[in-house]
Amino acid sequence: MNYKAGDLIKVKTKEGVYKGTYIPRKGNSIVIKLESGYNIGIDKNKIDNISLVRKQKKIKQKKEKIKQNNKLPTISILHTGGTIASKVDYRTGAVHSEFSPEEILRMFPELKEIANIRSRLIFQMFSEDMGPEHWEILAKEVKKEIEKKVDGIIITHGTDIIHYTSAALSFMLQNLPIPVLLVGAQRSSDRGSSDASLNLINASYFISKTSFNGVAICMHENTEDNSCLILPGTKTRKMHTSRRDAFKAVNDIPIAKVDYKKNIIENIKKIKENNESLISNIGFEKKIALIKIRPGFSHKELEFYKNYKGIIFEGTGLGHLAVSVLDKHTKEHKKTLDMIKKLSKKIPIFMASQCIFGRVDMNVYSSGRDLQEAGVIALEDMLSETAYVKLGWLLSFEKNQKKIKELMLKNIAGEISERTQLNEFL
Amino acid sequence: MNYKAGDLIKVKTKEGVYKGTYIPRKGNSIVIKLESGYNIGIDKNKIDNISLVRKQKKIKQKKEKIKQNNKLPTISILHTGGTIASKVDYRTGAVHSEFSPEEILRMFPELKEIANIRSRLIFQMFSEDMGPEHWEILAKEVKKEIEKKVDGIIITHGTDIIHYTSAALSFMLQNLPIPVLLVGAQRSSDRGSSDASLNLINASYFISKTSFNGVAICMHENTEDNSCLILPGTKTRKMHTSRRDAFKAVNDIPIAKVDYKKNIIENIKKIKENNESLISNIGFEKKIALIKIRPGFSHKELEFYKNYKGIIFEGTGLGHLAVSVLDKHTKEHKKTLDMIKKLSKKIPIFMASQCIFGRVDMNVYSSGRDLQEAGVIALEDMLSETAYVKLGWLLSFEKNQKKIKELMLKNIAGEISERTQLNEFL
Repeated sequence: MNYKAGDLIKVKTKEGVYKGTYIPRKGNSIVIKLESGYNIGIDKNKIDNISLVRKQKKIKQKKEKIKQNNKLPTISILHTGGTIASKVDYRTGAVHSEFSPEEILRMFPELKEIANIRSRLIFQMFSEDMGPEHWEILAKEVKKEIEKKVDGIIITHGTDIIHYTSAALSFMLQNLPIPVLLVGAQRSSDRGSSDASLNLINASYFISKTSFNGVAICMHENTEDNSCLILPGTKTRKMHTSRRDAFKAVNDIPIAKVDYKKNIIENIKKIKENNESLISNIGFEKKIALIKIRPGFSHKELEFYKNYKGIIFEGTGLGHLAVSVLDKHTKEHKKTLDMIKKLSKKIPIFMASQCIFGRVDMNVYSSGRDLQEAGVIALEDMLSETAYVKLGWLLSFEKNQKKIKELMLKNIAGEISERTQLNEFL
Repeated sequence: MNYKAGDLIKVKTKEGVYKGTYIPRKGNSIVIKLESGYNIGIDKNKIDNISLVRKQKKIKQKKEKIKQNNKLPTISILHTGGTIASKVDYRTGAVHSEFSPEEILRMFPELKEIANIRSRLIFQMFSEDMGPEHWEILAKEVKKEIEKKVDGIIITHGTDIIHYTSAALSFMLQNLPIPVLLVGAQRSSDRGSSDASLNLINASYFISKTSFNGVAICMHENTEDNSCLILPGTKTRKMHTSRRDAFKAVNDIPIAKVDYKKNIIENIKKIKENNESLISNIGFEKKIALIKIRPGFSHKELEFYKNYKGIIFEGTGLGHLAVSVLDKHTKEHKKTLDMIKKLSKKIPIFMASQCIFGRVDMNVYSSGRDLQEAGVIALEDMLSETAYVKLGWLLSFEKNQKKIKELMLKNIAGEISERTQLNEFL
């Protein structure tokens, strides 16, 4: 093997010849990055021959002294990992974890005109590996940056659970004096189609011009590399596995549209002034469940959670699950209803909908009414993911069952929209 | 109490006077149906006075002899329940379960010009109470109707899990010689905004004109009461709790657009001819799980399913869950990976995505690759709900683990779209 990570190699198979940058990986495939930016894996058993085209080019990193511009706002970039921070990793197969302001400005020189950049590495992980403990650490780091009086914070973050993290920060830190934007990328920075640069620069541009305060997500508006949306921290969801515009506001409108190339910021939502002081309430009770309901759901699955501290159901339709006994096949349903009654005496149980869009309403049909009588509380138009995060957060400091139920239905960070009129359902 | 179900009453409270049809219900509220079609519940404690406006009008049901028209196709309507069949129920508070062809033609007189109608009542239930046993019964009833040589079948069905049922029928009955359309309604038939009539008539019109064969769902295209979409049986999802156009094709295009008022059928998908004979393979293994992954997921939740016959994960992003050990907070992840390795030796474990749209790809990131090495199989662009139904169906007749894995990745009823080109991810 005369090639190393980062070298350009040529791989011959019966089906064709592939040229690309070698990325060492476990498994039975040779992985190379094509010039197009795509990684492909080629089964080792199908390879006739691999040849070295060119050794990796050594990139000289000259240390450039960054000048501070007092006229520009200061933005802190907190790195947590994910595709957006994986430029070097993807190109060479190795991981660079410096993330100095110098390195960031080399990668995204446009930022020099927008803001003074500070940066720190908090984590180096893909977001699917993050858990509530990381949300707590991150919230504390955000708080530290706020205390340093920066004008805005950008958190680079893997996209898998970025919307869970944005909800967590929205609850743990309230009355933020500045914008805190989570920014991800669906394609790594060295791919032609990467969205990393546009998302990061648009986020910075938005921070430099806006009076918005709060937690939001900044991602592509569509698949053209122009505009980004600033999406509400508790009402956004990843709606596509791979598209650059995977993130959508759900049961809400975006906060703003940003296109730094055209100097455009279009406020979509009215920006509220904030004169209150920061509330930081950082904690998470992990022993809570998020259960997706399906036909054939068994009460025994529910029983497993009997020692948990709270449950969010992701029910069907307006907020249902099978609880009616109608024929010999539905005898199990009574056991489910009885189990819910039993559990709800000890722990709070809530209902969101697996439809994702729309509001739950448990007054319309008998299953909904029976569930309410058994103690299940309908969560209006709250996303199930946000509901899970909110419940874990609430339970970390509030032990009174009645209070928990009240607070779950109180709009704390934009997680519940007002039901403006009956006509909503037309 | 001088009023009964179906009587028009006037309810006086401090906040206002409400007039509507009385619907008896359990609980602390008086429920009336307003003229607009909305049901409202009024807290009994807040009511000053209830007065009778008018006794229920007796509707004379004259038995009309239906003439068969030999020039028209014959459609069998199989009722299973749900909002679409709740006209009489909602108006009077009582349940009429006749569902004779005569009654259907009285409710939807437009059908007379479209088809000869037969009908049978299979169930009388909201769909959230349906389970795999009901799918098996329904599949057998559909088969009976096919053997009677009808030209098409309409199944009226509650909307909550109509997409799970359409997937079940798609697998249990293959090579259908005729269209089998599931039709639901988001609003009951006596509401001004009801979608029941349009969905049912458009479904009938489509059947009368099309050469399509297979299982599909017929629901509103948008919130105007004009056109319906014929949606693919294994690639459709309820995407809104209450809108009339709640159903969307996911990772696929609709089969056709129908507007009977304008005599329009627009084929969107190419309709394949079917010269094969009907395969009926009716069964379902209930001991399978559908698990939605979330940050904080514990390996113990997975362990609960150790005696199950198969598992579908609804992972994050491209098909992930937390399995990397990166810091002291992620030690639990190894236990999850070990549990997956242990379980996957005995039972098949598959991965769909909670993003809903897009394709899973477990080759891009290390969590995906680690999960694949642990035995998890990526389900391409299959919906998690469809995957759950397919796995339960497969396990009812196939016991060979290797075969099950092969068949899960074989496109049997349109549940997997072809990955046509690399560019898909652009």
